[in-house]
Amino acid sequence: MSYTALVEHFEQLHHLQHLGAICGWDQATMMPPGGNEARAEALGTLAVLCHRQLQEAQLPDWFAAAEAGPLTPEQAVSLHEMRRAWRDANMLPADLVRARSLAGSRCEHAWRSLRPANDWAGFLPLFEEVLNLSRQAASARAEALGLSRYDSLLEQYEPGMRSRQLDQLFGNLGGWLPDLIRQVQERQRHERVLAPSGPFPTTQQKALGLEVMALLGFDFAHGRLDVSAHPFCGGVGEDVRLTTRYDEQDVTQALMGIIHETGHARYEQGLPAAWRKLPAGQARSMGVHESQSLFFEMQLARHPAFLARLAPMLERHFGPQPAFVPDNLARLYTRVEPGFIRVDADEVTYPAHVMLRFEIERDLIEGRMEARDLPERWDQLMQQYLGLSTKGNHKDGCLQDIHWTDGSFGYFPSYTLGAIYAAQQAAAMQQQLGPLDRLIGEDLPAIFGWLQQHIWQHASLLETGVLLSRATGQALDPAPFRLHLEQRYLA
Amino acid sequence: MSYTALVEHFEQLHHLQHLGAICGWDQATMMPPGGNEARAEALGTLAVLCHRQLQEAQLPDWFAAAEAGPLTPEQAVSLHEMRRAWRDANMLPADLVRARSLAGSRCEHAWRSLRPANDWAGFLPLFEEVLNLSRQAASARAEALGLSRYDSLLEQYEPGMRSRQLDQLFGNLGGWLPDLIRQVQERQRHERVLAPSGPFPTTQQKALGLEVMALLGFDFAHGRLDVSAHPFCGGVGEDVRLTTRYDEQDVTQALMGIIHETGHARYEQGLPAAWRKLPAGQARSMGVHESQSLFFEMQLARHPAFLARLAPMLERHFGPQPAFVPDNLARLYTRVEPGFIRVDADEVTYPAHVMLRFEIERDLIEGRMEARDLPERWDQLMQQYLGLSTKGNHKDGCLQDIHWTDGSFGYFPSYTLGAIYAAQQAAAMQQQLGPLDRLIGEDLPAIFGWLQQHIWQHASLLETGVLLSRATGQALDPAPFRLHLEQRYLA
Ligand SMILES: [Zn+2]
Ligand SMILES: [Zn+2]
Repeated sequence: MSYTALVEHFEQLHHLQHLGAICGWDQATMMPPGGNEARAEALGTLAVLCHRQLQEAQLPDWFAAAEAGPLTPEQAVSLHEMRRAWRDANMLPADLVRARSLAGSRCEHAWRSLRPANDWAGFLPLFEEVLNLSRQAASARAEALGLSRYDSLLEQYEPGMRSRQLDQLFGNLGGWLPDLIRQVQERQRHERVLAPSGPFPTTQQKALGLEVMALLGFDFAHGRLDVSAHPFCGGVGEDVRLTTRYDEQDVTQALMGIIHETGHARYEQGLPAAWRKLPAGQARSMGVHESQSLFFEMQLARHPAFLARLAPMLERHFGPQPAFVPDNLARLYTRVEPGFIRVDADEVTYPAHVMLRFEIERDLIEGRMEARDLPERWDQLMQQYLGLSTKGNHKDGCLQDIHWTDGSFGYFPSYTLGAIYAAQQAAAMQQQLGPLDRLIGEDLPAIFGWLQQHIWQHASLLETGVLLSRATGQALDPAPFRLHLEQRYLA
Repeated sequence: MSYTALVEHFEQLHHLQHLGAICGWDQATMMPPGGNEARAEALGTLAVLCHRQLQEAQLPDWFAAAEAGPLTPEQAVSLHEMRRAWRDANMLPADLVRARSLAGSRCEHAWRSLRPANDWAGFLPLFEEVLNLSRQAASARAEALGLSRYDSLLEQYEPGMRSRQLDQLFGNLGGWLPDLIRQVQERQRHERVLAPSGPFPTTQQKALGLEVMALLGFDFAHGRLDVSAHPFCGGVGEDVRLTTRYDEQDVTQALMGIIHETGHARYEQGLPAAWRKLPAGQARSMGVHESQSLFFEMQLARHPAFLARLAPMLERHFGPQPAFVPDNLARLYTRVEPGFIRVDADEVTYPAHVMLRFEIERDLIEGRMEARDLPERWDQLMQQYLGLSTKGNHKDGCLQDIHWTDGSFGYFPSYTLGAIYAAQQAAAMQQQLGPLDRLIGEDLPAIFGWLQQHIWQHASLLETGVLLSRATGQALDPAPFRLHLEQRYLA
């Protein structure tokens, strides 16, 4: 009885979140600029309502009563996830929730024009407000959870993960990755790579993107593809909204972006329908989410066997050219080159971008660094990790990401966790189903079936470590990722 | 203090309505089909929340306290409009609200397939249920408001309007309109009208539509144009969402549809920013709303001076053809022909469609007629007003409109009230600013300025009668409408 009441209560919350997800998507894709202030206010009110739904006074009683009653094992997990959501929401005062939502919307919206203008001075006061509120939130969470301030934010995106583990992980990567980057660059120095020559009209790029999404099993009855400044995968499981952005001079970026978001989308579309409206039915963590997008983008789409299938599709949409030969595509899509922009980075240098952000955001949140010092610190770490200077070049430096504009501190490690989880999954899949080569060339559905069975259908019904161990036989382990890079880039 | 609390409370309601408006727009324009069930549930939860916001137990106390305190005249009106919204939401028992909503969606949903199948027998039981519940709602509202049952429904769409006035109005129209229709038809019998010859590609039609919207002063920073099966004007004042549908064989319908919705949109965009989030800041009534769309569509866009400006735009988008000559456009857009379908009717025969529906819906609600007698009565009135029989042809007869399927009895008179208000406004404008001819040809901004000053900026701060009298010097008066028709169609 109490469990039933809880289900109804959390389903209502899910409905509110549905409205927020669609209006958030609209804000980034469809909304005219003059609509932003009203939208920010409306979403702020919704955030308060969602928060209030989780502050319902009867919840603790219902939790206690439900725990006393008979529950299936899955209902017990479901209850645990409800409690987690409740705990997260009750750590922060409503005023702070509202203030964060407002400041985040404002900063993010301004960022959309400040970044292209390279306007750090215009961005700083908005960002200081976001940081200030995020620190307050981190303090409140840290106290309630008995964690450090940064770990309390990390816990939102990757439950159970601690910065101590990340220090170890990045320590491990730091031990071999710089050398691997050098080796790969040495090896690729004399490689001849042809760049596809454009222009590539947006409509054609979109048509190709839709075709590739279909090949990857995206369900168009439950989702769509649009354009936004910063690509994302939003919406709800029944209606997943992907976005990308097109550059008519470059066909490679938007396509890989679409494939990446399609990985996110298939996870969302593959979550178990029976649990969809409850916390236990949501994606496990952002790291697991990124593992799906990176599985699609890195393990699958940059694999020579996939590029061999992509080549004729490119020719069909843009006409034949020497750059579209599979071997060249493979060289193109595995080109390693330290660069400024995280989202454009190859999979070998990508972890360096994440390490930089992890160090900075931890220091910002722990109060060891101030917002105004961001450009200098960014420049210093970019020089150290990738040998590049971003001095004065804010738009390609510390202004490049959307994450901090709305206070999503603690998110960045998810990308590298995802890359590592994905490599573990690919290794396990090959052990169980045979070489990826053949699967990609002839049996993509077997790959999707494996992911459905081992990842998607479990939603949040398993903790990340258990999910990963059952699927791959190992907890978090960077070894398969290292092996993958060595085999793809040095073999 | 209490007034401030009320402002905050109603602003929250407005934010919820904002989310509903955007998600409703998305449902009609963007949503993939598989998303509908989840969306319907989410919007259902939102409707309950909005209703609950108006049932807040403290509201009567806040109203009383606010009334006792010092209020500016505008705040007093604002309070009055808050009370009106509160009263409307609290007149009906929750069970009845729920039953109506359910029966309405069931009937509306079935209607979408029953209408094309001409299936009156299948429609009748569903419609009887809707009618039965609408009668109950009307009784409850009538008792609370001290009005007749039908008037209590009319009050929802056109506050202050009574069926006694509508009887007078339609009595007046009935006295001269049938003869006018005959005269116009006689006069047009030998007129040669060229139909534009297509196809007219959708992208070109949209480009033309956007250009015409810009000419009509639509603010694209606060709105956009999309496609939906049933055109509408939605969104919120800060972000107005118009829709249309394109037929590649016909350039005339989508364009006039866009112009009509642009009239609705400019009203919404022109509502006073300071009042936007409160009931007093909303559009005055559905009649006033339709007066703006019909001003744009009928008074303005079908005027020869406007068609002279439209001609070169049509040529630019579709190439020259004889049908695009201004004189032919004028004949095309003022063609009068009695037909079955209200939404396709010209401005001369349109009131006959409304009179028929008014008579029938009033009798249905007042219990003077039963649902099963609808087809016969419809046929009889169609023969009487337009000389057409709908015997056995339900899909082009009593099944053609969506309004009654979800119980929106009392809405139809808004269309003719709008046409009459629009004619009054056009007459007053000409008296004050000079002939429309010149204004349309050379000074459209003067027209929009007049509407802004006399209609848009007043939102619901004036009652309809006062708004209209101040703007035009007259309360509701069909004479300018008659004069307009005589001058345009018989001069
Ligand atoms: Zn991602
Ligand atoms: Zn209209």
